Amino acid sequence: MSLQFDIQQRDAKTRARVGVIHTAHGDIETPAFMPVATQATVKGLTAQDLYALAAQLIICNTYHLALRPGAEQIAQLGGLHAFMNWQRPISTDSGGFQVFSLGAAIRDGVGKIADIFPDEARGEIEIKGDRTPLNKIDNDGVTFNSHLDGSRIRLTPERSMQLQHQLGADFILAFDECTSPLDTYEYTREALGRTHRWAERCLTQHAQTKREYQNLFGIVQGGAYRDLREESARVIGGLPFEGLAIGGSLGKSKNDMHAILEWTIPLLPDNKPRHLLGIGEIEDIVNGVERGIDLFDCAAPTRWARNGALIVSPEIAQRDEIKNNRLTIANARYALDPAPIDATCECVTCKNYSRAYLHHLHRAQELSYYRLATIHNLHLMLRFMEQTRAALREKRWTEFRSQVAS
Amino acid sequence: MSLQFDIQQRDAKTRARVGVIHTAHGDIETPAFMPVATQATVKGLTAQDLYALAAQLIICNTYHLALRPGAEQIAQLGGLHAFMNWQRPISTDSGGFQVFSLGAAIRDGVGKIADIFPDEARGEIEIKGDRTPLNKIDNDGVTFNSHLDGSRIRLTPERSMQLQHQLGADFILAFDECTSPLDTYEYTREALGRTHRWAERCLTQHAQTKREYQNLFGIVQGGAYRDLREESARVIGGLPFEGLAIGGSLGKSKNDMHAILEWTIPLLPDNKPRHLLGIGEIEDIVNGVERGIDLFDCAAPTRWARNGALIVSPEIAQRDEIKNNRLTIANARYALDPAPIDATCECVTCKNYSRAYLHHLHRAQELSYYRLATIHNLHLMLRFMEQTRAALREKRWTEFRSQVAS
Repeated sequence: MSLQFDIQQRDAKTRARVGVIHTAHGDIETPAFMPVATQATVKGLTAQDLYALAAQLIICNTYHLALRPGAEQIAQLGGLHAFMNWQRPISTDSGGFQVFSLGAAIRDGVGKIADIFPDEARGEIEIKGDRTPLNKIDNDGVTFNSHLDGSRIRLTPERSMQLQHQLGADFILAFDECTSPLDTYEYTREALGRTHRWAERCLTQHAQTKREYQNLFGIVQGGAYRDLREESARVIGGLPFEGLAIGGSLGKSKNDMHAILEWTIPLLPDNKPRHLLGIGEIEDIVNGVERGIDLFDCAAPTRWARNGALIVSPEIAQRDEIKNNRLTIANARYALDPAPIDATCECVTCKNYSRAYLHHLHRAQELSYYRLATIHNLHLMLRFMEQTRAALREKRWTEFRSQVAS
Repeated sequence: MSLQFDIQQRDAKTRARVGVIHTAHGDIETPAFMPVATQATVKGLTAQDLYALAAQLIICNTYHLALRPGAEQIAQLGGLHAFMNWQRPISTDSGGFQVFSLGAAIRDGVGKIADIFPDEARGEIEIKGDRTPLNKIDNDGVTFNSHLDGSRIRLTPERSMQLQHQLGADFILAFDECTSPLDTYEYTREALGRTHRWAERCLTQHAQTKREYQNLFGIVQGGAYRDLREESARVIGGLPFEGLAIGGSLGKSKNDMHAILEWTIPLLPDNKPRHLLGIGEIEDIVNGVERGIDLFDCAAPTRWARNGALIVSPEIAQRDEIKNNRLTIANARYALDPAPIDATCECVTCKNYSRAYLHHLHRAQELSYYRLATIHNLHLMLRFMEQTRAALREKRWTEFRSQVAS
């Protein structure tokens, strides 16, 4: 059973498209944003909260869940859907990103460091001093030293597939080597060779141990090198994956990322959903959508919330002179402000609580703050995706994108 | 307008009674348990969560709120009900308990230490080394050194009243000197004299600056000394308070506490609601109810939840061999347990999530754990209060109490 993806409408001038992916756990309207639930919970929220937010799908992390509580344990409990009591679609990341985040990212002092220690719930942490990578790559796979207890974990393409089959997500990802933006051309080419060989091994293993409803996405890598990205798009795009992801180092600037999408997307089959891994700020979504991306995931909106940065609509940002569309709730100007975070927002937080109350809860580091802030930021992200889909369906993309992003 | 309290039914053999207190923010069925919302939030929960739990009233803390965000600030925002968006009754503690918890409790190394630093959200802390009290008592009032920034705060009976009038709770408490169980008879008598003089000053100030709907409760003190407790019950019971509280050091054992209730309650006017301050474990509630208590508050059930101790019904405790009616969710035996915490429980947590999932969230210190655990423990506490009221209304108290407590 191949993944059914109906593209319902295309923008006339760009590669943007709006559609529906049909899964065993329900339909996903695309373009879609998936909240990040690294350890089988969006930090601060329950599955009930996610239903109330009308989240369509979420993404969990294979590496973290394999360490704790264990994929075998989750399988015994009926898989991730039963474990979390979330009956809508789930994606799992393959562990390939941790090849980077626990390896080259530490060595080079770059990347999404916050990803490494997700139990550090309240924000980003810094890696100080020791720059020794927590993993070692060879041609067959990767050996990790657990960040929890130092024990050794071995991931290979086959093992990542087996773990993801145990977890039971609807969309699973091939195990790849995610490289660093500081890697040389030579190293990136060598790593890409591994990623491509591993892609075929993933497909072979997938056919053997998958749950019937699971769909495997291949990952295009190649760093910021045009010929490697194009080669990867041709190789991965030519394999029988059910979806495609653009992963890895997306260069050192937004322009690099846009270029990578422009090199790769035209070479990918048109009828498979495309996931831009780990990207999901509003401006990036706009730029991704019009280059042909259907699925986004990003920890930033939820991490911002926990750190006190609350997203506001362009209208409120302009009225209240808020830079970057993000209100800093710790700011003393909100201590006596009875208004909601965003008067245009219909989320539970904005319908019930004032900036002054959230300012207080944030200052006092009260647990309730983290949930209320996360609900708000996700609501605005998901509302933005609805608006994006509506603009595409109603053939007013150009007008919409000019209002929301530069 | 005096507080209307209708006693609807009395137990034939004990002082237990069931009734309704009518307030400007709605009725309270008694005996009632109030969740503790020290800093204007029950840790981990929102007002919406408390409505869903059918909580009848909550108790906030004047000292902590006066420090942060400030009573004046809360008054400007419309008072606590508007600030929290909680439209049912609220109590506030006077700051008198902090005379103990930030004073003699530190000096003597005793008492409810967890009360001192409520922003330490995840459990109790220990006072190490320095035994210097954070306050100084004189006959006119108490001077505190803020535990937040060391700044000096002065509380007098008048100031406590003014702060509580700014906060705007339905039930407010007289400012008293809560003594240590290690205080001598002589010191306890001297402190009791202050508490009685301060009680009259509170009444005078209350008449001048209260909000129309606010009701002042007097506090009976006197340590574990029978003559002092009896004297205090006569003095406080004879003053025109709208309700009465039993406070302070309740001795060194449960038996001491029971004795204190037996000495004092018969000397108090029968027609005013009685609040046993800071007490609320199930066995204590049973013992308090049958000695004539109507209102309870206690941080233990919510603190237990955050620390991983989840209340279960006697039925489940017996079936699963759980000691003390509290399941330790960190225990490895729950790692693969698909059952809810308590199969007899109708809370959102038990209806949706397994012990295995909560075990995982607790181990991973995920924010969502704290809320789900708190909802469960409060649900069982509030269900127990409903059962208590039903047993009294249906004239089967003796049978009920023999089933639930020793």
